[in-house]
Order: sequence, then structure tokens, then C-alpha cells
Amino acid sequence: MIDKSVIQTRLERAREGLSDAGADAVVCFPSSNMYYLSGFDDEPMERHLFLFVTPETELFVVPEMYDAQITDESPIADIRTWGDGEDPTALLETVGSELEIESGRLLVDDRMWALFTQDLRATFPEVSFGLASEVLDRLRIRKDETELEMLREAARLSDTVSEAIRALGADAIGMTERELADEVEKRLAAAGGDGVSFETVVGSGPNGARPHHRHGERTIESGDPVVLDFGTRYEGYPGDQTRTVVFEGEPPDTFREVHEAVLDAHNAGIEAVNPGVEAREVDRAAREVLENRGYGNAFIHRTGHGVGLDVHEPPYLTSENDRKLESGMVCSVEPGIYLEGEFGVRIEDLVVVTESGCERLNDSPRTWRPLDRSNH
Amino acid sequence: MIDKSVIQTRLERAREGLSDAGADAVVCFPSSNMYYLSGFDDEPMERHLFLFVTPETELFVVPEMYDAQITDESPIADIRTWGDGEDPTALLETVGSELEIESGRLLVDDRMWALFTQDLRATFPEVSFGLASEVLDRLRIRKDETELEMLREAARLSDTVSEAIRALGADAIGMTERELADEVEKRLAAAGGDGVSFETVVGSGPNGARPHHRHGERTIESGDPVVLDFGTRYEGYPGDQTRTVVFEGEPPDTFREVHEAVLDAHNAGIEAVNPGVEAREVDRAAREVLENRGYGNAFIHRTGHGVGLDVHEPPYLTSENDRKLESGMVCSVEPGIYLEGEFGVRIEDLVVVTESGCERLNDSPRTWRPLDRSNH
Repeated sequence: MIDKSVIQTRLERAREGLSDAGADAVVCFPSSNMYYLSGFDDEPMERHLFLFVTPETELFVVPEMYDAQITDESPIADIRTWGDGEDPTALLETVGSELEIESGRLLVDDRMWALFTQDLRATFPEVSFGLASEVLDRLRIRKDETELEMLREAARLSDTVSEAIRALGADAIGMTERELADEVEKRLAAAGGDGVSFETVVGSGPNGARPHHRHGERTIESGDPVVLDFGTRYEGYPGDQTRTVVFEGEPPDTFREVHEAVLDAHNAGIEAVNPGVEAREVDRAAREVLENRGYGNAFIHRTGHGVGLDVHEPPYLTSENDRKLESGMVCSVEPGIYLEGEFGVRIEDLVVVTESGCERLNDSPRTWRPLDRSNH
Repeated sequence: MIDKSVIQTRLERAREGLSDAGADAVVCFPSSNMYYLSGFDDEPMERHLFLFVTPETELFVVPEMYDAQITDESPIADIRTWGDGEDPTALLETVGSELEIESGRLLVDDRMWALFTQDLRATFPEVSFGLASEVLDRLRIRKDETELEMLREAARLSDTVSEAIRALGADAIGMTERELADEVEKRLAAAGGDGVSFETVVGSGPNGARPHHRHGERTIESGDPVVLDFGTRYEGYPGDQTRTVVFEGEPPDTFREVHEAVLDAHNAGIEAVNPGVEAREVDRAAREVLENRGYGNAFIHRTGHGVGLDVHEPPYLTSENDRKLESGMVCSVEPGIYLEGEFGVRIEDLVVVTESGCERLNDSPRTWRPLDRSNH
């Protein structure tokens, strides 16, 4: 549970943001925004469950069956409920009139489903709409010390499992990607993690050349480069790190050179992370290394993304983003080379921007060779 | 991978639906709708990844890094890509002009994030918007034989694990809810399921009185009623069943009576499922049993929901829904009694509506007593 005083501080800052944005309310849907502002979280759902925050107050509109749970988990005391047999529109109209937002400007959760944004538009035809990120990005993008502690712990748990998996060495040969992913997830849970940050990536051989391949039925063979990208959550905050390993045998001819290029690009990206630097400069630093080695066209995604309650959130380290990095921002640095039909290599750490540079949250070895099993 | 001819049939039916709805295109976002119409699926993401379906054609707009993967997983050949450093708006404008939808009516995915619906509104200011469900609900709500096979297998896997967990008997005493949930999820994976249908519910003692409590740190004690609600997926289709068990010891005084009332309500609900019957009649049948036993106020949610690629989808069995059930529809029947501060009881099976009544997809025992371990 998030401390009540932390919630109060966040709500006050959101209120200040509302007046800066010329908006009358933020309306959250079950999401990281709702959790950040209230301490209550659930998966997105088909029932109307909203948190309204206005310059004067805040209140929940929730299905009756969530009443007791939200009372327990959130310090926000004003909870309006509707029953499963009722139409929630009447309650929305009442709340809209009470909060005097029927002809104002509403900032809806960036991840609110169209089902509900359409419904809000129909219920409040005079309202104009914007996105909650107009106000909340500024709050969420710089992590406080408590958040950093959670992110460090999530990184530590993910590193521990990454090392144990890479110590499997020849034992991983003959496993399918799915079996290895199950092993990863079992160990993440055993280490104390709470669920996965995202579906575990085990990209073996040619599957590694698909940056967003998850895991399939392919069997890992001797000499296969295998991209391992996964993480677990700790108190809601996700780990996210990537290593590329050859569990046993001789990798393809070009592999050593490709791995070295990616590692150099990764280190160059991290070196570039400093307060005051534009996000695109980090992308440039990493991309330049790969271009100079002739792999520019094989690096088909951005260099990184911010990480917080959402595993992908601002700041995005793309070639165009001129947003300046500030201390307390956390992001991934994860260049890769993808050779369609052959293999892929990606190396990723999370870093937090500090006053003087950055701190890596991950510190497990970045080598492609299997780790010594005696240490794990 | 979904068979190409199945995708073609679904696309043709979607096209027919478009003209019936007076709409010019459906725009899907990564969701079950996208999977249903294309065979490609991913988690919702912050990058623009859309499937456009018009009366004449269909095409993908995707980040470059997804190109090879979608080519493999979907028979839809027209894939337009944008790079991570580019603004996808230009590509959207080109596609909009080519498809002649700039001043038409677009049906956006019901679960599309506000981030993207706002962006589509800004890119196509002349367009009017509706929801994809206007066209797709009718297609998806009746399951074909292949889909039913997947749902049967997912139910079978979930039943198997439910029985094994209830056979733990006294061994479950002293475990925390989280530990038992981990055990459930480990066994679901071992049985051949692909991930969980939703976060596993282990509601012990008073936590069972919160219908959407997931699992926490509470230790299961002798005599505790424990609500177990979980499922795994098979080929994308989810299992979802609930049993309430007392692993060992004497339950609270009123428990037997409460469990019997819920079981009678559950059976009455299932009895009411027939083609041509309104959804609310099923709710009425179950609710009436609980009202007659004096527990009407303790049943604080609808009687059930449809189940398909989404674990909650139409038809919803609420007290108001007058939609008529048709053969091929699949839904849960899951009445419950929730006694705040004491315990909860819920019993849930999935059923498919047949020509003459319904078929239960779950057949594990509904007793609250621990199962005989010699069978498991």
C-alpha cells in the first residue's frame, strides 16, 4: 500500500498541474495512473471504474463489488458505487454536475479504452477532451527515492535469475523456448518477484532476429545465440534487462563481431546518459557505433524507453526526441542488431539519471558466454 | 496460427457488417479483435500498430520492427511500416487518403487507448467515430466448432489443476494465499496451459468476501473457506472456473447453509440457460434462489459473463440485459454470497448454449470438502 502522505502529495501536484493545463479534471481508468494517484490498482475492465481528480477534490466511481476493496487499499474516502444491474451513466451525470465539469475540459487516462471515452463523450457532450499525461507525465517521469528502491530491487531480482539461467550452459540445449521461458518465470517467482514485467522473451537462433518475438516451440540448439529479455515486478515496479547468450558450442561466424558491436553501442549509450542531455543524443551515441560498424540498418528500433509503473513510458530514447534528461528519470538502454533468418543480439540495462551522470540498475555480466555454474 | 480460410471468412463477415452499420472501416489496436481478424496478437503498446478493414480491403500500419513477425503470423499481406524515429501520422494520413476514409465513419477497437483515439481524431478531423463492437460483437459472440474445442481444452486443464489443488487438503493449511496462487500457476503451466486467464484468485477467510480480491499475504488457517477462481489459456482461449473449499477443519457455523444456497443458485442458473432465453432470465433464476434464502443483498454482482478470446465479453448475464441467448454462445454462471468480515462463497462453471439447452465445460466436483488425494 502506498503511504497516505505520498498519495496526498501526488494529488496536490496533480491539482497544480490541472490549472497549468487549463483543465477541470483528470479521469483515470484502472491503470498505473490510477495506482499512482490512489494506491488502488486492477486490470483494465469492462465495468465503469473511474477516479476523478479536480482542483478541489477527488472521488471514485466504482462497481459496488469493489467498494470494500478500494476502501482498504486507497486513502481516497469518497467512493460512489453503482450496481451490476444498473446503468452507470446516471451516476456519471450526477458526479459531473456535482464536480461542475459538464462543460469543461477533461483529461482522460491515456490508456482508457475507447469504450469509455466514447461513453464519456456521449454523457458530457459539451466537454472537450485531452489526455491525463498532459498533467501526470511531469509528475511520474522523475522517480522519488522510494520508487528508486523498488526499481533497484526489481532489477536485482531479474539479474539474479538472468545469471542462474545463463549458468544452465549445456543443460539449456534441447529445451524449447517455451520450456526455458517457463523456467525463467518459475525462478522469478521463487526469487520473490510478483509476476512478470511482460511476456518473457526467449529468441533462439533466427527467432532472435525478431525484436518482439516472445517464445515458441523452437528447440535451442548448440551454437544458437539466444536473446533473453525478461523481468519481474517488485511492489508494482518492473525489472527489464536483456542479455544474449550462447549456451554451448560455436556461434555463427559473424556472431562475435556483432555481439561486440552491440556491447560497445550499449556502453556508448549509457555513457551518454547525463542530466541536461536530450534523449535523442543517447540514441545517437548508440546508433553511431552500429552505423560505423556497418550495422545501422540492422538496428530497427529506438535505443530505449522510460521505466516506472509502466514498463514502457516516457522518456523514449528515439532519434527525434529532444526532451532533456533530468535526475530521477529511469530508462532502458538497449541497442540491438537483427539479422533476419540468422540471429539477433540485444543488450539492455536500466539506468537512473543522477545529478552527475547515471547509475546502472543492472550489473550482471554482459558476456555471451555461459556463466560459471559454481557461482549460482 | 489461425487458418487462412478462417481469417478470410471472418474478414468477409466483417465487411458485410460494415455496410449494415453504415461505416467505412474498422480500426483495430492490439487486442482480441485484431487477433480474431488477422491471426496476429500482441499486448497493447505505446506504438501505433493498427489493422484497417474496409469494405474493399485490409491493411496493417505497424512499427518496422514488427514487419517480419506479422508477415509470419498473419495472412494479411499489405503491411505498411514506420520507423521508430518517424512520426506515424504521415503514414496514417497516406493510408486514410488511399482508403478514402478521411470524412467517413470509423469504428475503433473498443479497447483502443485514448492516446490513439485522440490521435486518430486529430489526424482525421472530419471523421465520425463509433466502436468496432458494432460490427464484431455479432461475429465473435457465437463460437465455431474450432473455438469450442479450444475452450473445452482450456476448461479441462483448469479443472485438472482445481482438483489437484483441492486434494492438497491439510497441506494447504499454513500456506499464504500468494504461495497457493504460485502453486496453482505452476501446475497450470505444467499441465500445458499458456499463461493465466487472469490473476489467480485465492480468497481465504474474510478475503473471500471481496469478489475481486486476487491473493495476498494472509495465511490459510484450519476451517477457512477459500475461494479459488482461476484458469489458463489454450491456443488463446481461456478457462475460468471457481470452487470454494475448506481444506481442513470446521468451517464457520453458517458456511454449510451458504455453500448450499450458492450451489443451488448456480444449478438454477445453468438450468435456465437455453437458446431464446434472455440473459437476464438466467440472472433472475440464480438470484431468486439467493433472495429466497435471505441472501439477496449478499450477492453483489451479475450472474455471469460471456467468455471467448476475452475472458469477459458479451453476453453479460445481468439483471437488465434482454439479449437472447443463441447456440454457440459461451458464458460463465457464477453466483456468490459475500459476508463482509467473515467469508465468501462462489461457484462458477462455463457453459456453451446448445440447440436444446446447454453443455457444461467444467465438470470437477462442486463440493467444499477437500478432494480425495488418491485420485490426483
